[in-house]
Amino acid sequence: MARHLYHCPLRWADMDAFGHVNNVVFLRYLEEARIDFMFRLKPEGDGPSFSGGSVVARHEIDYLRPLVHRHAPVTIESWVTNLRAAALTIAYEVKDPETADSPEVVYARASTVVVPYDLKAERPRRITAYEREYLEKYRDDAGPGGLVA
Amino acid sequence: MARHLYHCPLRWADMDAFGHVNNVVFLRYLEEARIDFMFRLKPEGDGPSFSGGSVVARHEIDYLRPLVHRHAPVTIESWVTNLRAAALTIAYEVKDPETADSPEVVYARASTVVVPYDLKAERPRRITAYEREYLEKYRDDAGPGGLVA
Amino acid sequence: MARHLYHCPLRWADMDAFGHVNNVVFLRYLEEARIDFMFRLKPEGDGPSFSGGSVVARHEIDYLRPLVHRHAPVTIESWVTNLRAAALTIAYEVKDPETADSPEVVYARASTVVVPYDLKAERPRRITAYEREYLEKYRDDAGPGGLVA
Amino acid sequence: MARHLYHCPLRWADMDAFGHVNNVVFLRYLEEARIDFMFRLKPEGDGPSFSGGSVVARHEIDYLRPLVHRHAPVTIESWVTNLRAAALTIAYEVKDPETADSPEVVYARASTVVVPYDLKAERPRRITAYEREYLEKYRDDAGPGGLVA
Repeated sequence: MARHLYHCPLRWADMDAFGHVNNVVFLRYLEEARIDFMFRLKPEGDGPSFSGGSVVARHEIDYLRPLVHRHAPVTIESWVTNLRAAALTIAYEVKDPETADSPEVVYARASTVVVPYDLKAERPRRITAYEREYLEKYRDDAGPGGLVA
Repeated sequence: MARHLYHCPLRWADMDAFGHVNNVVFLRYLEEARIDFMFRLKPEGDGPSFSGGSVVARHEIDYLRPLVHRHAPVTIESWVTNLRAAALTIAYEVKDPETADSPEVVYARASTVVVPYDLKAERPRRITAYEREYLEKYRDDAGPGGLVA
Repeated sequence: MARHLYHCPLRWADMDAFGHVNNVVFLRYLEEARIDFMFRLKPEGDGPSFSGGSVVARHEIDYLRPLVHRHAPVTIESWVTNLRAAALTIAYEVKDPETADSPEVVYARASTVVVPYDLKAERPRRITAYEREYLEKYRDDAGPGGLVA
Repeated sequence: MARHLYHCPLRWADMDAFGHVNNVVFLRYLEEARIDFMFRLKPEGDGPSFSGGSVVARHEIDYLRPLVHRHAPVTIESWVTNLRAAALTIAYEVKDPETADSPEVVYARASTVVVPYDLKAERPRRITAYEREYLEKYRDDAGPGGLVA
């Protein structure tokens, strides 16, 4: 039940005219975490890869606290809550982890349904056994916020 | 049961390296539709306004079909599915409406929970009677896709 | 000596935390104006097209006045100041034109060197006679601000 | 004659439909480098700060080589080529530095004129002696590409 950790750098322009990181930009952060999680898996031989084609079928996101630009990255924890034949669900928490000086601060909780896609054939494809083995290491039925998905 | 219509212009750079409008950019389109819907409501006298402060508490979005850049705008239909004391839910369909030559094409269905916010006091505020009267015109319990929310 | 006019829609999120349209976003507006100008030219038969591949080799931009989000688009005037064998220079003014009630307001002046590119061969290509004929209609040696380029 | 080094993280979505980092996004990278360079300077006592208000008056940028998304950041070298009473010019090189295995690769050279701005008074302000002392450390009359600016 490992969790994938991504330390997501903020950009100053991620803030909008209200002076907070804009809600849409959080989805960009999730994309970066997802790419760091999924696109780094090298294809097996001539096999397909997530980086070669993946489609987002659904997002859900709850915003809990405003986030303001700072030089330190924000942490995104990702894991897999659902693994089907041709789709997986990734859950995330966007947070500053607990330190000696301060408690954990969670900015957002979210989940995304991803469908591996064959760009040439222009249709979804099945998750391979090789990919499944990798994703199972990050499998946890608990959804974001500790709820069962 | 009016629906608010926004004709959302695309930008070429909204496409990503897969050659489709990136999933995150759809949320940007929803923001534009929401602003066109909510921020245009002039404040009543010295009263508060949505443009003066609004926070997104939650998004849900289902992607149904890929969208490719073209010069014609895409239509976003918006309406209000839930109206509480200090929060409202907006539902949307991102689509090309039916024409004489072609059936309706829906690219995405989504909903957003918005909380009016008092930026000076730094806390949520209640929806005023004046705002409620405006929003009620767009009230429809049916969520995106015709499901009851 | 025609000028190409593009009415560029703003997005609320084009503003940054200082409450103005961010300087980087002006380059995005120029891209939209350029695409409206260049990508709309249909290819001649099986010939190449700007939309099939174009590379930006250089930008220069001067910011004259801050621009704040509004629902009305901003006007971008574009023309060609230099037309070589395999490169052209486009000049722009980002402005609100003069009206009965108000004088012209210029927000930025800029120019871009564009190189048509053959994506398959992975190298620059020459401007065709057909493309040249189109571009010549917008030719004006005067650079942005009325200076000779 | 120190140079400020910023290791700029790329985002996957920085690429456009041509599969390269979009030319506009390079200006975003320069903004991040500039903020890392200028906004980190803490204000002297109650004095003004660059982070409290800075306006870009001009950009020039030459694109030398296409950049494709990768997980490793790209290096941005910044220095000051011109330091006036109320404006400074920053020059940059966007590059992969020389390593034991590969020569230096320069993707872009650019320069920006920045004007410190008093947001409350809504007008430019002079660079303070304290700020000047900091900026002088990075002063080099050589512009990007080794040319005298």
